[in-house]
Amino acid sequence: MIRWPLPEPMLRALDQARAAAAEGEVPIGAVIVRQGAVIAAAHNRPRALHDPTSHAEIEAIRAAARLLGSERLDGCDLWVTLEPCAMCAGAIVHARIARLYYGASDPKGGAVEHGARVFEQDQCLHRPEVYAGIGEDVASALLKDFFRVRR
Amino acid sequence: MIRWPLPEPMLRALDQARAAAAEGEVPIGAVIVRQGAVIAAAHNRPRALHDPTSHAEIEAIRAAARLLGSERLDGCDLWVTLEPCAMCAGAIVHARIARLYYGASDPKGGAVEHGARVFEQDQCLHRPEVYAGIGEDVASALLKDFFRVRR
Repeated sequence: MIRWPLPEPMLRALDQARAAAAEGEVPIGAVIVRQGAVIAAAHNRPRALHDPTSHAEIEAIRAAARLLGSERLDGCDLWVTLEPCAMCAGAIVHARIARLYYGASDPKGGAVEHGARVFEQDQCLHRPEVYAGIGEDVASALLKDFFRVRR
Repeated sequence: MIRWPLPEPMLRALDQARAAAAEGEVPIGAVIVRQGAVIAAAHNRPRALHDPTSHAEIEAIRAAARLLGSERLDGCDLWVTLEPCAMCAGAIVHARIARLYYGASDPKGGAVEHGARVFEQDQCLHRPEVYAGIGEDVASALLKDFFRVRR
């Protein structure tokens, strides 16, 4: 069987998730792509940084905005291994991310297709295009392995 | 007529909102209180910092967590001049803020009593006590003045 290869940005996001696990952080990774190039890659580091807002998406968005010298990431895409939570979905709106690609769905904490459904609210000022389920088996396995060892 | 005085933390948050306006940032301020003392005071600085996540609440939460050396702000209260958006409401959950006090309601962007209603979701892991309408007339006037000058 030949498995369809995952897109390069998701492979990079999964590498970031593995780096998080190696540091004892929940394995979630994200990258920002602009004009075909990865301009930021990050993973969550709430424990190391003592920062409850340090999710992979927030770290990647902040790094990309710093790099571009702009609070808006118009035309940029965000790739992340897990469905974003309400905080991260809100940040995606504020940053004007054009396209969101994510791996595994997250019924417990996701706020795109679950819970707060941030992009579906009437008040939502900017809605990214959303593509889900890219590499979800790999992304889920990383999370399951991480939590299994810790229980 | 004697006006009932605003609580000290909201006065400090309103001072932060004025500081934001003086810097050309949207006038919203926030403080974190722990055991009766203000441990962090901040305002939004997305333009100055080139950071779309730089809302008053996020800045205050990050500063307090850094100060305490913990990703969780158990037992801490957040005072903010405007109803938090989805991003900030999510951060309040992640930080385990005990009590949220806010000034003006925000039908356009708020996610506490409007839109995504983050704390009302079944999946919400932590719900702060919420107290609204504290100093809302002052908080609203600061925002209206700011945008009137710019239109």
